Amino acid sequence: MNASRREFLTTVSAGVAAGITQGGFFSGAHAAEDRKLGVALVGLGSLSTHQIAPALAKTQHCRLAAIVTGSPEKEKAWGDKYGIGPDHRYSYEAFDKIAGDDSVDIVYIVLPNSMHAEYTIRAAKAGKHVLCEKPMANSSAECNAMIAACQQMNRLLAIGYRCQFEPHHLKCMEIARSQEMGKLSRIDAGFGFTIGDPKQWRLRHQLAGGGALMDVGIYALQACRYLTGEEPVSVIAQETKTDPIKFAEVDESITWSMKFPSGVIATCSTSYNFNGLNRFRAYGEKGWFGMDPAYSYEGNRIETSNGKIELAQVDQFGTELDEFAKCIRENRPSRVSGQEGLKDILAIEAIYRSIQQRSLVSVS
Amino acid sequence: MNASRREFLTTVSAGVAAGITQGGFFSGAHAAEDRKLGVALVGLGSLSTHQIAPALAKTQHCRLAAIVTGSPEKEKAWGDKYGIGPDHRYSYEAFDKIAGDDSVDIVYIVLPNSMHAEYTIRAAKAGKHVLCEKPMANSSAECNAMIAACQQMNRLLAIGYRCQFEPHHLKCMEIARSQEMGKLSRIDAGFGFTIGDPKQWRLRHQLAGGGALMDVGIYALQACRYLTGEEPVSVIAQETKTDPIKFAEVDESITWSMKFPSGVIATCSTSYNFNGLNRFRAYGEKGWFGMDPAYSYEGNRIETSNGKIELAQVDQFGTELDEFAKCIRENRPSRVSGQEGLKDILAIEAIYRSIQQRSLVSVS
Repeated sequence: MNASRREFLTTVSAGVAAGITQGGFFSGAHAAEDRKLGVALVGLGSLSTHQIAPALAKTQHCRLAAIVTGSPEKEKAWGDKYGIGPDHRYSYEAFDKIAGDDSVDIVYIVLPNSMHAEYTIRAAKAGKHVLCEKPMANSSAECNAMIAACQQMNRLLAIGYRCQFEPHHLKCMEIARSQEMGKLSRIDAGFGFTIGDPKQWRLRHQLAGGGALMDVGIYALQACRYLTGEEPVSVIAQETKTDPIKFAEVDESITWSMKFPSGVIATCSTSYNFNGLNRFRAYGEKGWFGMDPAYSYEGNRIETSNGKIELAQVDQFGTELDEFAKCIRENRPSRVSGQEGLKDILAIEAIYRSIQQRSLVSVS
Repeated sequence: MNASRREFLTTVSAGVAAGITQGGFFSGAHAAEDRKLGVALVGLGSLSTHQIAPALAKTQHCRLAAIVTGSPEKEKAWGDKYGIGPDHRYSYEAFDKIAGDDSVDIVYIVLPNSMHAEYTIRAAKAGKHVLCEKPMANSSAECNAMIAACQQMNRLLAIGYRCQFEPHHLKCMEIARSQEMGKLSRIDAGFGFTIGDPKQWRLRHQLAGGGALMDVGIYALQACRYLTGEEPVSVIAQETKTDPIKFAEVDESITWSMKFPSGVIATCSTSYNFNGLNRFRAYGEKGWFGMDPAYSYEGNRIETSNGKIELAQVDQFGTELDEFAKCIRENRPSRVSGQEGLKDILAIEAIYRSIQQRSLVSVS
């Protein structure tokens, strides 16, 4: 990598080079401002197929440069479809060779949760910046290891919190920050859906680390955190299971409430057994605002006590990718950094602890 | 009273008399089908002034027959305004004399919560049916005493759950019962408002028994109970206080979740420190339905995953009064009986217990 970086330093503009000498964030030989950053997609499941690959094609600053898959069929099909030559197609076993692939700047990890830590660390060691899907990992210990690995290699780490770049969410953050509706008192938030195939990895504890809470409850948790701009202090939670066979290993439904330092209390819920819960609402001294639906890939809407607000719909994965590319170019940490991902996992661990202990717990 | 009842039996129709011989529910000498039942209003505060008295004037089966107040000014003003003669105006001290007032069939108690038990018991002992505002009382022990007193005197007792007779709520109960949206999995419900005058009785523990939970949280609790048709099994709750001076004696904000035998989990919240939280939403296998606003005196609306439902707006207090009159006429217990009021207080006690113990508790 050092060879590539040196070579690169001789070719890029002074402004960009200044960034690099501060942080050394560029990994590829061709990572100039006018070049799209190359993304290696790790895990070619449904999300990669239906959301991320189409989004990548629409980004300004990224392009699909490599694929990592355990399936020779997918390797061929994706390679042919997206024009990715054999040198940029990797099996999981051969993944570490990506270190020598200068076409790859970013490794985007779209694997089962239990594999996030391993592949983030391997990608960082290969000298790549890492965009890792949420939830960041199965435990805060893994999160810490991921952060440390990226810091050690001077690589950027971002978590796939697509909502944080979505115009309606950004507008809600602005309403919260400006106290347009007064000081916030309360937030209600929830996200759930009826999960299908009982054999999928999301229902296996070892792979998913948890159920609805890890997968979609995290959106409600995120919303409460970015609306308040605070970390929860205490949490109280309760779990229900109506289908103990399907949900033998992971949580089906959880409700929890979190207290924030400013006094805001948030009531949240998540589930894998019904559709339609996809919202948040924040109540201030002067009125309320929120979104419903809030966390969909498209069609999200703002409702307030003063009426509706409709903003442009964007490709959330594309925006997330472009924002990360800008962070790399501008040599600054992402707003959805590993630290941000860790904070959610700490709150999630507290929620599970509260369920287990049947009591109010602190978020440590 | 026996004399009156005997006299009455000679005048009413056979059908109604059949009811009376079973239960002996009529108290007044003139309580025939075509006579409006006389209501004594106990406590002439804001609710009586702005809601109940105007509602009474619109009822089919009731009329304002007497007033009970501690204020000589109110006694005169109300007496003059509603044509209530001096014989039907009572001070609290003289209240028990209402036993001899055959114009009064129903005593409607609109007093601070701590006085509900005393006046219900005194009214029952005076041979009157009792309609008591919610919350039924400050403790389940008081509720049990109220139920016992009314049973002993063979008087009907109903609690002022106006929503249970409101068309949108009735429609939602029907949607729940018919499983039109499939089996329910989850309910979110909340009711809160910014309470004004810091000197009012609602903020005094001795008078109110509790704060937002007792006063408006009970609507969210009720909604969860009548949507599921079940009693909560376990409860977990958390409290926040942003103004410890104003809310020194009672709860300002509480969030809680309740688990029901069918597996439904309900996330609820209530507050005295912000406006706009006035809703419930129930999620089933096939879709969701709910109301927002849900608990207002007027303007309540149904929203579902299939669209909006708008029904007639009714005078909720008037409907509640007429329904109680019909129960008395038809010699059957009210759907919002003392037992129903007790069930809410048992759940409320569990919520306060959970807050105190910082743990999950059973609803006993």
